[in-house]
Amino acid sequence: MQIQDKFDQIIAKNDSLVCVGLDSDFNKLPEHLKNSANPQFEFNKAIIGATHDLVCAYKPNSAFYEAQGPKGIEQLKMTCDYIRQNYPEIPIILDAKRADIGNTNVGYVTFAYDYLGVDAITLHPYLGSEAIKPFLEREDKAAIILCRTSNPGAGEFQDLISDGQKLYQVVAKRVVNEWNKNGNCFLVVGATYPGELAEVRKIAGEMTLLVPGIGAQGGEVEETVKAGLNSQKAGMIINSSRGIIFASGGEDFAEKAREETMKLRDEINKYRV
Amino acid sequence: MQIQDKFDQIIAKNDSLVCVGLDSDFNKLPEHLKNSANPQFEFNKAIIGATHDLVCAYKPNSAFYEAQGPKGIEQLKMTCDYIRQNYPEIPIILDAKRADIGNTNVGYVTFAYDYLGVDAITLHPYLGSEAIKPFLEREDKAAIILCRTSNPGAGEFQDLISDGQKLYQVVAKRVVNEWNKNGNCFLVVGATYPGELAEVRKIAGEMTLLVPGIGAQGGEVEETVKAGLNSQKAGMIINSSRGIIFASGGEDFAEKAREETMKLRDEINKYRV
Repeated sequence: MQIQDKFDQIIAKNDSLVCVGLDSDFNKLPEHLKNSANPQFEFNKAIIGATHDLVCAYKPNSAFYEAQGPKGIEQLKMTCDYIRQNYPEIPIILDAKRADIGNTNVGYVTFAYDYLGVDAITLHPYLGSEAIKPFLEREDKAAIILCRTSNPGAGEFQDLISDGQKLYQVVAKRVVNEWNKNGNCFLVVGATYPGELAEVRKIAGEMTLLVPGIGAQGGEVEETVKAGLNSQKAGMIINSSRGIIFASGGEDFAEKAREETMKLRDEINKYRV
Repeated sequence: MQIQDKFDQIIAKNDSLVCVGLDSDFNKLPEHLKNSANPQFEFNKAIIGATHDLVCAYKPNSAFYEAQGPKGIEQLKMTCDYIRQNYPEIPIILDAKRADIGNTNVGYVTFAYDYLGVDAITLHPYLGSEAIKPFLEREDKAAIILCRTSNPGAGEFQDLISDGQKLYQVVAKRVVNEWNKNGNCFLVVGATYPGELAEVRKIAGEMTLLVPGIGAQGGEVEETVKAGLNSQKAGMIINSSRGIIFASGGEDFAEKAREETMKLRDEINKYRV
């Protein structure tokens, strides 16, 4: 199965473009979980149990696990194993924003794909495609390239104009026309910039876009969905992290996460018709 | 003590611009070490013991440790602890090429500075300075920004011309003029591009440059040193990884690493006069 199909199938099955960001910062976990043996994993397990029929992907961000040292890395792996064993149809995106030169990337490939067993990883474009070949060559996995990020200062370099185009547009064109030989490239475009999202959609054709920045970061659902859909009324993975997983800080956190996920899924779907 | 002083002092004390890259890929370790409890750490300990009086920094690349899962992360920490306990005057650069948005970086800051206790980290510039503020604000640590990287395809985006300047020059100017408010920014420029290195030196003033790509990657010592020195005949951290640590694959690996380090230090110093 092509990696693209795995995403397309779960989008259809769960009728959802929602990705839940497992940014499970230890310091923000509900108090009653903090003393358990594997608090980040216990938290994620509950979130996944409460949302698996409503999502098209899970996206743990590596930073929140690395902050806990080896114990955090173990819980990240436990989380990935749990998803693969119980919900093998749901893709896992490791949000790690990596990119080194040449063979050094093999270390990251081993970490992400062999050790954790995720389906996709986010990557910086700055070093060029030659550098990240070890990721691009893994046809069974998606390489998700940062294009126009969701942060307020994203434009500092991404909006520089070269030959009449902004850098993020140049990145999008290269990825679409040259890097995607194995049909396994996606692009990251923030929901906080619907104008830029629409520009990238024009360049990207049917390519899937990972869209963070909805909710807590301020992205509006209607504008985002209208700007980012492909011709199949899909082709987007819309991520919400804090707005879902920390909707409640109490014992009802999983229940509230389900409510928020359903609300977001349904709101997104209103604009997919 | 300013972080810059820590680098300047060891450069003077050891009369060396050599940084040894601890790219201690498990698969390339000498056979007699592979079955020990902590092979990457044992290897690093021997390399450090044999070279500490000849270097200005150690630079472990995170990818080679992450590839081994939690066990690798532990050995990375053991390596950093060992350096700090035995050679506290030698700075440790975590080559991790990170950069996420805003507060997510706090996870990486915690991993690098609080858990591992390193002195510096390498960072991608693509998201802009606003994104990586959590690194820039740590005045006691160096933020080493990728500018012109050493890989063959580095120019794909880094050489794009915007307003008469190449992207890597724009990055260098921003870092020098705007990002370096705490005097803790360095730039990465590959030894494989001495012309670009000279361009960056013109922009960078006295700023320290981390220069990978000497040796195995093909960078020439004379050209590199002449292109990169600042007015103090220093201001460079010239990294060699494979050429030093894997100079021998046998039981004499540490001894050979010392020989190669000394050779490189002396050759570099020939052109510092």
